[in-house]
Amino acid sequence: MTRLRIDLAYDGGGFYGWAKQPELRTVQGTIEDALHKVLRVPVGDEREPLRLTVAGRTDTGVHASHQVAHLDVSDETLARCQGHMDVPLTEALARRLKAVLPADIVIHGIAIAPQGFDARFSALERTYVYRVADRSSEVDPRLRGCVLRVDESLDLDAMNAAAAMTIGLHDFGSFATPNPGGTTIREVKTAYWRRVPVASLVPDVLAENEAYRTPSLESGLVVFTIVADAFARNMVRSLVGSSIKVGSGRKTLEWFADKMANPVREGSSGPIAPQGLTLEHIEYPADDQLAARAEAIRAVRTL
Amino acid sequence: MTRLRIDLAYDGGGFYGWAKQPELRTVQGTIEDALHKVLRVPVGDEREPLRLTVAGRTDTGVHASHQVAHLDVSDETLARCQGHMDVPLTEALARRLKAVLPADIVIHGIAIAPQGFDARFSALERTYVYRVADRSSEVDPRLRGCVLRVDESLDLDAMNAAAAMTIGLHDFGSFATPNPGGTTIREVKTAYWRRVPVASLVPDVLAENEAYRTPSLESGLVVFTIVADAFARNMVRSLVGSSIKVGSGRKTLEWFADKMANPVREGSSGPIAPQGLTLEHIEYPADDQLAARAEAIRAVRTL
Repeated sequence: MTRLRIDLAYDGGGFYGWAKQPELRTVQGTIEDALHKVLRVPVGDEREPLRLTVAGRTDTGVHASHQVAHLDVSDETLARCQGHMDVPLTEALARRLKAVLPADIVIHGIAIAPQGFDARFSALERTYVYRVADRSSEVDPRLRGCVLRVDESLDLDAMNAAAAMTIGLHDFGSFATPNPGGTTIREVKTAYWRRVPVASLVPDVLAENEAYRTPSLESGLVVFTIVADAFARNMVRSLVGSSIKVGSGRKTLEWFADKMANPVREGSSGPIAPQGLTLEHIEYPADDQLAARAEAIRAVRTL
Repeated sequence: MTRLRIDLAYDGGGFYGWAKQPELRTVQGTIEDALHKVLRVPVGDEREPLRLTVAGRTDTGVHASHQVAHLDVSDETLARCQGHMDVPLTEALARRLKAVLPADIVIHGIAIAPQGFDARFSALERTYVYRVADRSSEVDPRLRGCVLRVDESLDLDAMNAAAAMTIGLHDFGSFATPNPGGTTIREVKTAYWRRVPVASLVPDVLAENEAYRTPSLESGLVVFTIVADAFARNMVRSLVGSSIKVGSGRKTLEWFADKMANPVREGSSGPIAPQGLTLEHIEYPADDQLAARAEAIRAVRTL
């Protein structure tokens, strides 16, 4: 048996989230179907289920630029993807998957996982980004599927004051839907709002003329970056929605502080639109600490 | 009569190009229909045709991030967009257009055009960008609609050597479809290939941790920027296609130099896929030279 680490990205706009569901197009379901096809394992074969375990189970419409999953596969099955390709088995599998996957899923790479690696339980931190265009942003229509448009002017200082309150170990009960029996206590490592500078797509261009330095697509957008050990359900989108209320002046910082201090879900800060949200990064410990981390997390969390 | 300057952007993926065509969804047709609606002018009314003149007539599937058009409209008709809005007429028109236009067209702004302004004939320079992902680029699937994927490693030095040959006044007959009676002589002001550095979305982030600086969406892409007084039909996409042949080693620089020296269209360097191409910028002279420029260009070109 070999455990593979699969690094991938997807445009969440066409999926009902990561988790496999009957009759719905999901990322997990689409990739598992592709695995069954290229490894020639009949779907439903109990001896070889080809089931993915993922670091961040994204919701309907949420994107991932750097998602991580693992797959356990028998050596005999894995060998089937070699064919006539004179490359390592992991590379052969990546090529075959690319050939059958739809354009909204991209495999960045496949590797033999180090000893003790578990995509979900070994993870130390998850990073999410939320992209917003406010009244002063010039939105490129090609980014409409990954940006939330708000017709207001946002006060980033106020939003950063709110973000600062989230840093540390807190009960995010006002911003999350708890799983049955689960906790909404999480540790936020960093959280900040920034406006992307209107910057040249290619910063080092030698052209003498300023007008020849065309701007990057994301110039002028307002982005939220948040890193935590893990996130409770709907947590990022609820924090973003509440922060936008503060940034537009519809709610005060005191209101936000009160929600942090009194973690009771009261419905008023439900999750904001999913298309602005992207899972950006999963941080893992050094290889020799992977197993210990997974064991510790498995013991305390039913996330 | 008032002449309006309209600055706009569109995702070209859903349009059969700029120019209006019966029965096909085009950018011009879509905006003109919206203008007739918000200004309450019946379509086909000969007295008030509401016809747009554009700086860069993009082809099917080509995008524009900063396109410019003009519209002549009678003061009486323009006044109809005021309604109860306490804003200038140009702003009122922009808001009404935003409300009726589809999500793949964005109006950046509308202004009263300065005396002598002609969106097409006053333009001094046009800037286009072409985005490519080569074998070493990590492509975000959300950008698949504006990036050409090539499964090769590109030699940017060779491609820049080819680009350098295009700078100056040349007959681009090997790279363009001439209009009947038209010329394929154009003046390229600058042309260069660069790889977008893998850079943080927010360069000035104070976070101590490198891992918290998430990359911009375009990180790692290979982009071509070209500026010219104007472009002959298919010229940018043909130059890009030929440059990629040089960059991948399928053709030599001598082959490219020969095409530049002998401007005869021979079919082998037809235009490459449109989705990588974007009209990025139109440069106009100072206001007091707009009319003179338009007159001079009108006299020599039937572009």
